[in-house]
Amino acid sequence: MSVTTAAALVPLAERFAAAKRASTVLATATAATKNRALEAIASALLAESDRIVAANARDLENADANGLSAGLRDRLALDEKRLGALADAVLDVVALVDPVGESVRGSTLPNGLKLSQVRVPFGVVGAIYEARPNVTVDIAALALKSGNAAVLRGGSAAENTNLVLVDVLRTAIASSGLPADSVQTVDEFGRDGARELMRARGFVDVLIPRGSAELINAVVAESTVPVIETGAGVVHIYLDESADEQLAVDIVHNAKVQRVSVCNALETLLVNRAAAPRVLGPVLDRLRGAGVTIHGDADVRTLYPDSVRATDEDWAAEYYSLDLAVAIVDDLDGALEHIARWSTHHTESIITNDLANAERFLAEVDSAVVMVNASTRFTDGGEFGFGAEVGISTQKLHARGPMGLQELTSTKWLVRGTGQIRP
Amino acid sequence: MSVTTAAALVPLAERFAAAKRASTVLATATAATKNRALEAIASALLAESDRIVAANARDLENADANGLSAGLRDRLALDEKRLGALADAVLDVVALVDPVGESVRGSTLPNGLKLSQVRVPFGVVGAIYEARPNVTVDIAALALKSGNAAVLRGGSAAENTNLVLVDVLRTAIASSGLPADSVQTVDEFGRDGARELMRARGFVDVLIPRGSAELINAVVAESTVPVIETGAGVVHIYLDESADEQLAVDIVHNAKVQRVSVCNALETLLVNRAAAPRVLGPVLDRLRGAGVTIHGDADVRTLYPDSVRATDEDWAAEYYSLDLAVAIVDDLDGALEHIARWSTHHTESIITNDLANAERFLAEVDSAVVMVNASTRFTDGGEFGFGAEVGISTQKLHARGPMGLQELTSTKWLVRGTGQIRP
Repeated sequence: MSVTTAAALVPLAERFAAAKRASTVLATATAATKNRALEAIASALLAESDRIVAANARDLENADANGLSAGLRDRLALDEKRLGALADAVLDVVALVDPVGESVRGSTLPNGLKLSQVRVPFGVVGAIYEARPNVTVDIAALALKSGNAAVLRGGSAAENTNLVLVDVLRTAIASSGLPADSVQTVDEFGRDGARELMRARGFVDVLIPRGSAELINAVVAESTVPVIETGAGVVHIYLDESADEQLAVDIVHNAKVQRVSVCNALETLLVNRAAAPRVLGPVLDRLRGAGVTIHGDADVRTLYPDSVRATDEDWAAEYYSLDLAVAIVDDLDGALEHIARWSTHHTESIITNDLANAERFLAEVDSAVVMVNASTRFTDGGEFGFGAEVGISTQKLHARGPMGLQELTSTKWLVRGTGQIRP
Repeated sequence: MSVTTAAALVPLAERFAAAKRASTVLATATAATKNRALEAIASALLAESDRIVAANARDLENADANGLSAGLRDRLALDEKRLGALADAVLDVVALVDPVGESVRGSTLPNGLKLSQVRVPFGVVGAIYEARPNVTVDIAALALKSGNAAVLRGGSAAENTNLVLVDVLRTAIASSGLPADSVQTVDEFGRDGARELMRARGFVDVLIPRGSAELINAVVAESTVPVIETGAGVVHIYLDESADEQLAVDIVHNAKVQRVSVCNALETLLVNRAAAPRVLGPVLDRLRGAGVTIHGDADVRTLYPDSVRATDEDWAAEYYSLDLAVAIVDDLDGALEHIARWSTHHTESIITNDLANAERFLAEVDSAVVMVNASTRFTDGGEFGFGAEVGISTQKLHARGPMGLQELTSTKWLVRGTGQIRP
């Protein structure tokens, strides 16, 4: 009997309780034990790739029948190559230092009390996400390494893939001597699963929604479990007056085109008015050559009349497609104002040779990641050296930007005394 | 015209927007400027003490008329001495290092990108609290030093005091050249003020409820602004088999009696069965001498028949009064089970001479602060060396335990490149 079949018989409340029990075992598990479980997961992803790809094919068939967008279909698809990359990402997590037990701060007070703030697992981490089955493995692996149990709710579009993946994960974890219940899915419970997960205070310590703005807003509004918001990226690049032409062409092309269905892809390009005659032509030519549709403001359309007329919807759009909104701004102030109004505070980059403007952009843009002369596609836990990532936090509480192992831990104060009382 | 009068004419939405605007000024204010504002606040609290105490007297009269409990009345009361202590606490904050701009982590990636994670203010911090006017000053001072604007909603029982305090704060801040709108109150708007504060996403970055469990639960359920839970403390001390008698007597007395109306005061005492005949008598005698009413389980009542019978309500109670729940447990496992079931994860302490039991208690109790041989009254931002405290977080997200300056900041990643694109 497969683990999945057994799990499917277990009611929802019991799954949360089982995750909580598993979390107490994980909290004191050694790094060596957790690494054994991760290695078992990496091996199982390869050994079970036929079964996983077959389940994914069923999800892709349904996606085609339901007319899923190209961007979402790309996120959903798993093949041997992507499974290999997923297994490698899990092995990268093995190589990372276990954050649990790390001493963050400490001191001895004048009265002799010894204070020590140490990293501890959250306990149970919940995740609600959409049609992107790699998230199932990424989050389970990072949760496990950081000593947390995971309760997962993937999108219905990836249901077949996720059920098989969770089965593979649970079996691999159990084979290493840790509780299979360290990873749970509530997918079979549909919307009830998501709703109860958002209300599971006392069982689930933190909830991470990953996906569209609507998904994230719904979770924020409904959840009584503390939430870390991730994802939605209306990402801007600003071409400053002094922008190097070739840098601008290469970075804008890379940020927009290299992968369109991800939150760190470029969505709005802002161009300094004085630089526009010089740089906008080469930049747009390169984009058009890659099939990008330009949505321009009035100034852009005067220069390039075949652009689509941009409206407020475009400034707010996370296209996830080969579309780009383009506006001309008078100066850095204009760019900062546009970004303050429309950004989702994910990632913004300035292309400039002017030191003062670079520093001002870094200081004043209120986003998780602010860049100078670099592609926004670098906002990524893997690129930042975190191994894999749980998501990219766009909120200011607890974690901001790419979230790795450390962002999946809390802390605890240990106080050692010899009879001290407060005067 | 006083600042308060002017502020009272400003509608609620405009206050949030004004706080947001003030926060952009505060975000780039130097530590020297912020310290000048704090010194002005400390001076003003002393210079305006007559006015503040007079307003407080009106609140105390209402409290007496409304039959406020002794514990709540104690939290509400301000006199010259407490104002002096408040002003001193503000000056302590002046002496603390400004956390803004601190580099938390950084690295240079193999591709040459320079990453730097720096501390930045949240922006606007909201606080909802009850009849405790010192919180008005503590939070405003810590928010200011950490570069945040504060929007405050105090309890109606302290309304007169808080209106005068906020007026004093705003005038002092304006005198230092920073925006008066750095501190706002929504008290005049009653429940509407609290409700809108909880919904002010995009204007308020984090909301801190301080007070009763009901208040905190209501804010958690209603707020769409990210919340840091604080406060409710069903605090336990466990007297282990090897507990030193005098340490037990002194620490339990201090934890229960030194100040009853605070969240780090002892509420439930657990006593090892084998130690009970030796230590329980002296401990209870000392408590009774201080006027404490004992609520005992069946075993305690067999030994001390004049105890009140304890029910589940007692194990869950945060008395805020000279009452103590007492249970006898078989061993450390029994104590850990009781704590896991009833604790609010604030502070627990073990009194023991057994090293293994001390370490196991530290490792397995899942609370913000876990102590050995010390009074639970030390769980306090001031005692921990934070200057003043915003509250004691009992959640695991972002901050856990006493919250000081650092806990009022977020971070931001700065990425400096030279044209890097993602392969």
